[in-house]
Amino acid sequence: MLDWLDEAAKRRAKAGLTRRLRPRPADARDLDLAGNDYLGLTRHPEVTAAAAEAARRWGAGATGSRLVTGTTEAHALLEAELAAFCGFEAALVFSSGYAANLAALTALAPAGTLLVSDAGNHASLIDGCRLARAATTVVPHAAPEAVADALAGHEGPAWGVTDGVFSVDGDAAPLAAWAEACRAHGAALLVDDAHGLGVVGPGGRGAVAGAGLAGAPDVVATVTLSKALGSQGGAVLGPARVIRQLVETARTMIFDTGLAPPAVAAALAALRLLRAEPAMAARALAATRTLHDRLTAAGLTARAPDAAVLSVRAPSPETAVAWAEDCRERGLRVGCFRPPSVPDGVSRLRLTARADLTPTQLDHAVTTVTATRP
Amino acid sequence: MLDWLDEAAKRRAKAGLTRRLRPRPADARDLDLAGNDYLGLTRHPEVTAAAAEAARRWGAGATGSRLVTGTTEAHALLEAELAAFCGFEAALVFSSGYAANLAALTALAPAGTLLVSDAGNHASLIDGCRLARAATTVVPHAAPEAVADALAGHEGPAWGVTDGVFSVDGDAAPLAAWAEACRAHGAALLVDDAHGLGVVGPGGRGAVAGAGLAGAPDVVATVTLSKALGSQGGAVLGPARVIRQLVETARTMIFDTGLAPPAVAAALAALRLLRAEPAMAARALAATRTLHDRLTAAGLTARAPDAAVLSVRAPSPETAVAWAEDCRERGLRVGCFRPPSVPDGVSRLRLTARADLTPTQLDHAVTTVTATRP
Repeated sequence: MLDWLDEAAKRRAKAGLTRRLRPRPADARDLDLAGNDYLGLTRHPEVTAAAAEAARRWGAGATGSRLVTGTTEAHALLEAELAAFCGFEAALVFSSGYAANLAALTALAPAGTLLVSDAGNHASLIDGCRLARAATTVVPHAAPEAVADALAGHEGPAWGVTDGVFSVDGDAAPLAAWAEACRAHGAALLVDDAHGLGVVGPGGRGAVAGAGLAGAPDVVATVTLSKALGSQGGAVLGPARVIRQLVETARTMIFDTGLAPPAVAAALAALRLLRAEPAMAARALAATRTLHDRLTAAGLTARAPDAAVLSVRAPSPETAVAWAEDCRERGLRVGCFRPPSVPDGVSRLRLTARADLTPTQLDHAVTTVTATRP
Repeated sequence: MLDWLDEAAKRRAKAGLTRRLRPRPADARDLDLAGNDYLGLTRHPEVTAAAAEAARRWGAGATGSRLVTGTTEAHALLEAELAAFCGFEAALVFSSGYAANLAALTALAPAGTLLVSDAGNHASLIDGCRLARAATTVVPHAAPEAVADALAGHEGPAWGVTDGVFSVDGDAAPLAAWAEACRAHGAALLVDDAHGLGVVGPGGRGAVAGAGLAGAPDVVATVTLSKALGSQGGAVLGPARVIRQLVETARTMIFDTGLAPPAVAAALAALRLLRAEPAMAARALAATRTLHDRLTAAGLTARAPDAAVLSVRAPSPETAVAWAEDCRERGLRVGCFRPPSVPDGVSRLRLTARADLTPTQLDHAVTTVTATRP
């Protein structure tokens, strides 16, 4: 009775959209420009030691919902330091950024709410809008004037909803203009800063802080602990009353097991490293810009990056897959974005930069990507 | 503009539904009958050592989506051993059981599908049904005849959707009857076995295996790694073509960071401990039954448990909270379920048992719960 699954797989294969998992070994020697470990902290000795120590001290898991046994003092400490670093009153940690976005949208948008959502938003924001008991209007990408139009005339709670940095092309949202449009119409603003934290804003405090919006009474940010902070999980940052609402009503917090203590401790260790060495963020950004300048100088098409993500256009899904495969054979691991992971249907090689890339590694990346172009 | 949040908090307070996080210390000395660490493995030295070693070997995080850099050989090994243990062809690991359920329901129920969902199902199954582009019919709790009625006459794909063991009362679903009803009408069956794995079925293989349904071509199970396996994460188990569909299309896999290697390794270590000592599962169940028999003999109201969850009825949300608080003051940590976490509006003390509870600890639990009854 599940024969339709085979038909669906055939249709995907025909469209060049087959995907499979490729387990990587621990001692992979290729240059990884595909992951989101923007600061190179996931294997930092202080980060891994913190994870190991937390496993011994707290156990491997949180054992229950955050409201039952799943909140340790380690969770509370991470939340306090994360909120302070990013400039918000309070924070609440989830098992993923996906869960954090679902929580924010479902718990903060009751029936009667209007959600105005950027067309390029991450899947987790889109799914959050779908799960919320609210109405959603999708506006064109990076178009604050459309936000104002969509909000005009709405009565009742409303939110503007946007990524801070978009994961596909690495472009930053015009957050100041979003905030202005929202405020002019009595709406609050929710920003997913997953790709901003650790890379943009003052000392890597993220795109929301960079736009001067951190800590505002009408601004909520979500972040991930699994990218620049090298761990796992996500968090919502905002006014204390927003966090209280999430603690008391968000289904992906009440009905999910708390983030595992090793992940909590690793994220906190990474946050402290970033706080102690804010130049890491600027190095990640500079490396991305170097990649962009050299690849476009070689004739490839890529948007100037606002963060540590650089997307290089490919002619088709099939050529994108072959291009990424050719890079891999030459020791360079890059991402490959195809539909439905791209909003505009254009397939891309996706390169991410890290704060710790050496000039030799950058040379290797540029040489390989250009030599294998389709 | 977020003043409505304060009004909502006041309404919750008035209804006795205020909730707050209570961070626990690492050296808490109270007896924990609130968590879901059914086998007592979350602090087992082999489990925590595996987490610590994985942090050093692989890093604290998976660094990307499972389809990009987020699949390590450790993920593949856990998936192979978990599938083999539970008796399924294949498995796919997610960052939470919540994400696993969202994935299964959204990726396996395209438009035109009918989902027939038990009224007592976990929030993550309910949210999965809401996110899927399918129609959902909710049937009364544990009523396979209603499943048959709901499926009758439907054309196109259909699924029966139920918890294997319900988290509130610890009652097992009539899975054989569910499967019969589904098969009679050409529907497949999806079972959330989060509270079954490690506790029920042969050697703790779960409620699906216990019903003889593991590995069937029309049965899919989801499990969690955060309860009996003491770690974090979830998994979908099923035929290879189901797992292929999830790999290629499930949004909570494609757009989420892979489960952190320390959690992957901890879950695998716990699974191996359970496989080596299957009697652990029976001990968890026996401890729960002892609690039930002694508490009901003392006049309290509780359903005979089918797994390691025992719910004791309380007269109201307020008395349930006070009761749990009185227990805590006497060194016993129990859960407290109030609306909206309970399907029937009845508040409960929720006790979970563990395979490693001693007779003295069981005495302490019974004495404390009865002495503090409202």
